[in-house]
Amino acid sequence: MTDPNVQRKLIEIMRIISKSDKPLGARLIADELQNRGYAIGERAVRYHLRILDERGFTKKHGYIGRTITDLGQKELNDALISDRLDLVITRIEELVYKTTYDLREKKGNVIVNVSVIDKRDYEKAMDVLKYAIDAGISISPRIRVVDEDSEEDDIFVPDGKFAIANVCSITYDGILLKNGIPSTPLYGGLMQMEAHKPVSFVDIIGYSGTSIDPIKIFINRRSTSVLDYIESGTGKLLANMRHVPGSAREKAREVMELAKESEIGGYLAIGETGEDVFSVPLEKGKAGIPVIVGSNAIAAIAEAGIPVKAYPVSTIMDYNIMKRLE
Amino acid sequence: MTDPNVQRKLIEIMRIISKSDKPLGARLIADELQNRGYAIGERAVRYHLRILDERGFTKKHGYIGRTITDLGQKELNDALISDRLDLVITRIEELVYKTTYDLREKKGNVIVNVSVIDKRDYEKAMDVLKYAIDAGISISPRIRVVDEDSEEDDIFVPDGKFAIANVCSITYDGILLKNGIPSTPLYGGLMQMEAHKPVSFVDIIGYSGTSIDPIKIFINRRSTSVLDYIESGTGKLLANMRHVPGSAREKAREVMELAKESEIGGYLAIGETGEDVFSVPLEKGKAGIPVIVGSNAIAAIAEAGIPVKAYPVSTIMDYNIMKRLE
Repeated sequence: MTDPNVQRKLIEIMRIISKSDKPLGARLIADELQNRGYAIGERAVRYHLRILDERGFTKKHGYIGRTITDLGQKELNDALISDRLDLVITRIEELVYKTTYDLREKKGNVIVNVSVIDKRDYEKAMDVLKYAIDAGISISPRIRVVDEDSEEDDIFVPDGKFAIANVCSITYDGILLKNGIPSTPLYGGLMQMEAHKPVSFVDIIGYSGTSIDPIKIFINRRSTSVLDYIESGTGKLLANMRHVPGSAREKAREVMELAKESEIGGYLAIGETGEDVFSVPLEKGKAGIPVIVGSNAIAAIAEAGIPVKAYPVSTIMDYNIMKRLE
Repeated sequence: MTDPNVQRKLIEIMRIISKSDKPLGARLIADELQNRGYAIGERAVRYHLRILDERGFTKKHGYIGRTITDLGQKELNDALISDRLDLVITRIEELVYKTTYDLREKKGNVIVNVSVIDKRDYEKAMDVLKYAIDAGISISPRIRVVDEDSEEDDIFVPDGKFAIANVCSITYDGILLKNGIPSTPLYGGLMQMEAHKPVSFVDIIGYSGTSIDPIKIFINRRSTSVLDYIESGTGKLLANMRHVPGSAREKAREVMELAKESEIGGYLAIGETGEDVFSVPLEKGKAGIPVIVGSNAIAAIAEAGIPVKAYPVSTIMDYNIMKRLE
């Protein structure tokens, strides 16, 4: 096992098989791998599975699929230890780089959050989602619902669940980069809103040096009050902060204004170069751009008492297969 | 209101009065201020209260105490906005600087975590605490119990509650600094333990750029398994990571070994200069020092189902008034 790329794929495949409660076939494994950001087809998965079989790490059960052996489980545990600590900023940078959406041609990929919800809660969740999106607290009205047996989407949806993909605010960083502006996501946080206006960040967590997504932390702590905000204009919304070089301020504004024509909005301001923005200190020479994040719509669903598993900054998706909720 | 120090104290006093559901006297306000890190006596509080009265921000009710006026509440809201975002690293750096414990004279202040628990849970909580400390999962066996009416301690304990102060692992950074070694706390995290040995950090959150203490996040997420670890040797413990200059590695080891004579232990390793330590990447020229943190004893109490409010890296305390649990 010398090639680190092959090694990583083998580990990932074992991890997927290990997590399943039944034998898995190459098709399902390929889907799940793509969801995890590995561009690998069914044929390539079969190739890797044969390697694993030969090493005694997996076992084939006719046409049903593979299970992991005790030896494979041991190998997996040893391997995972060094592979465990994935920093959020690494995934963010990868997805920012993969964002291809072109504001003029109006096509390409955006970054999405994926949220998994029980099918029994479908109607209630979609009602809250529409209510939240109509109130303008996410960065785009377009979403995509992914069923558990979807063949088109590279998103893994467990049995009995469905997934909502909605546009992630890190898409801004991808679009800015594609337009030649280096944009660095700094913090996820909670923005205090009063009279429908942003007042100050009240809590922030840095994207750099964390292995848990800051937005996910705030959703899980139930520290948002998105529904209160929609009703009264006062509440705490999820927001994040990035910086761009001060010299790129005006170009950044043009790009983000142009993005509105593609229904991508939600940036709150562009700070003065080197000055605090909504209480957040910024580096000399940098201008801060705070954005109301797409996950607010998901936080609203959680606030309504519907169990939801949130995966912010999850994957990329063709923006044109995402639709406005009618 | 020109002197920013006076201004900050006035705001802090209004904040304390505003949060109380009954009129507050100077004594209680002074206690709470000291808990928040303001070295200010009762007499000085009376002086500040007179200023607030004159400005119409507070109102005196005979000998019972003060309440805040509508005008005061408005002033407070406006002031708090710019004062809201307190970064954890700022408090950490302040307390590190205030650590005075001398390893040779065996006296001085250490940094403590403060945890507030309902009095009704006193016996059960103390049983778990002793069990956890005896198992060696905190950095010192010494603790201090603070009652709600304690006159000696600068710790505010609400009615019906008691507080446990235990030694915080950031004390190491204070002691290293006092011995001339600059030590920078980097991450709080979760350490996977197997066969009673540390294996790898599985999650980390950076101390820099967060307004919520990383250790508090992990306790609130209930992501520890301290009790499992004590029973089986396998589980997830709270741990943190700091770095020191590579050239100070040997001196750091000497200092931390000497600290053991004062019952301060719990550092897991001193990494090689510039090398990853338990999966955590480190800067060139720096050596990482992972430490099992004092809050594990508090996480154990939470795992036992006892409601506990944890305030890691809370304040400083004379180490010699802290005692081993018998």
